[in-house]
Amino acid sequence: MTVHTDYLWFRTSQRREMIRITDEVAEIVGRSGVREGMVLVSAMHITAGVYVNDWESGLIEDFATWLEQLAPSGRDYRHHQTGEDNADAHLKRTLMGHQVLLPITGGRLDLGPWEQVFYAEFDGQRRKLVVVKVMGMAGES
Amino acid sequence: MTVHTDYLWFRTSQRREMIRITDEVAEIVGRSGVREGMVLVSAMHITAGVYVNDWESGLIEDFATWLEQLAPSGRDYRHHQTGEDNADAHLKRTLMGHQVLLPITGGRLDLGPWEQVFYAEFDGQRRKLVVVKVMGMAGES
Amino acid sequence: MTVHTDYLWFRTSQRREMIRITDEVAEIVGRSGVREGMVLVSAMHITAGVYVNDWESGLIEDFATWLEQLAPSGRDYRHHQTGEDNADAHLKRTLMGHQVLLPITGGRLDLGPWEQVFYAEFDGQRRKLVVVKVMGMAGES
Repeated sequence: MTVHTDYLWFRTSQRREMIRITDEVAEIVGRSGVREGMVLVSAMHITAGVYVNDWESGLIEDFATWLEQLAPSGRDYRHHQTGEDNADAHLKRTLMGHQVLLPITGGRLDLGPWEQVFYAEFDGQRRKLVVVKVMGMAGES
Repeated sequence: MTVHTDYLWFRTSQRREMIRITDEVAEIVGRSGVREGMVLVSAMHITAGVYVNDWESGLIEDFATWLEQLAPSGRDYRHHQTGEDNADAHLKRTLMGHQVLLPITGGRLDLGPWEQVFYAEFDGQRRKLVVVKVMGMAGES
Repeated sequence: MTVHTDYLWFRTSQRREMIRITDEVAEIVGRSGVREGMVLVSAMHITAGVYVNDWESGLIEDFATWLEQLAPSGRDYRHHQTGEDNADAHLKRTLMGHQVLLPITGGRLDLGPWEQVFYAEFDGQRRKLVVVKVMGMAGES
């Protein structure tokens, strides 16, 4: 059994940004040597998420519009009495999900043809972390 | 350590459909020989989901109505400029979740009395795939 | 490879309650002896969830208000024709998520500085269960 841990760092230029990380995760899986197993990709900050969906700019904009409707910014949230202004980011990351677990088969991410992994930043412009944890069996290629 | 991979295929007759798959997943777990571990059940298409909830037809209809309210079809989504008409399906699958990880204890799915696993199709009538990946320890029964 | 299973029981005094369980999960991880791996924390009842977010009372109230807006109680849900009155609890737990998978690194939960694990009860005042399943490699400390 092999367990391999890595981390991805982000510092987005925008407050909200969706960043494709499929290749970065695949590279970590390759380095882990795991042939059969799973990889957890999980945001370590509670105003960011990780999700799997389409790599299509129109849909990514649709997500942004939709999240703003369901979890609007600029409201008088109780959380803001602490001095924060990012309650909507906590809600938005809850809607998108904060982690995914991807199967590894034959040494590769076992994804469908359209599945892409994204980091979803909702309160960026500062250094934030995602943990990537690979677990499974190593073996001959 | 044992890792076992299988796939479930779906081709729904309706565009949207909720299909109970608890028994299919349990059967794959049985064939894997894993006695203690976990099984990942994950939609490989980005307009479908996998979730755990109640096997009660009224609640399943409530889910459909609720999803249509929160992520309506027929709107002028940017994604539709690509020629697609299924942006709502991407949003609906995000709300329901696209994967679950189920514990295996003593060779069986370790579920609560009302937990049932469902495949949630939001853009069906075509062949679509779910990956079922079992990981854990085999052993005597 | 080590797999360790435990359960947490809840009986909330309120119908809806968010309960921090980070320490209980960490304690189970410690007892498991797993140094490198993952722990699944999953609600076994379908009107409760498990999520990771902020331990700040204002935000926890914001979540309650927001969930009531997106998945209101007291409506004429079809599920209520069975005699139940908790359809909203099934929807609310879907929004929050019903499980999390936490990385274990060096024998400890590998969480970001603000990550806290919560049990989210939406139909309480009765005995309910969460499964905690640890999987990974034991080793010297």
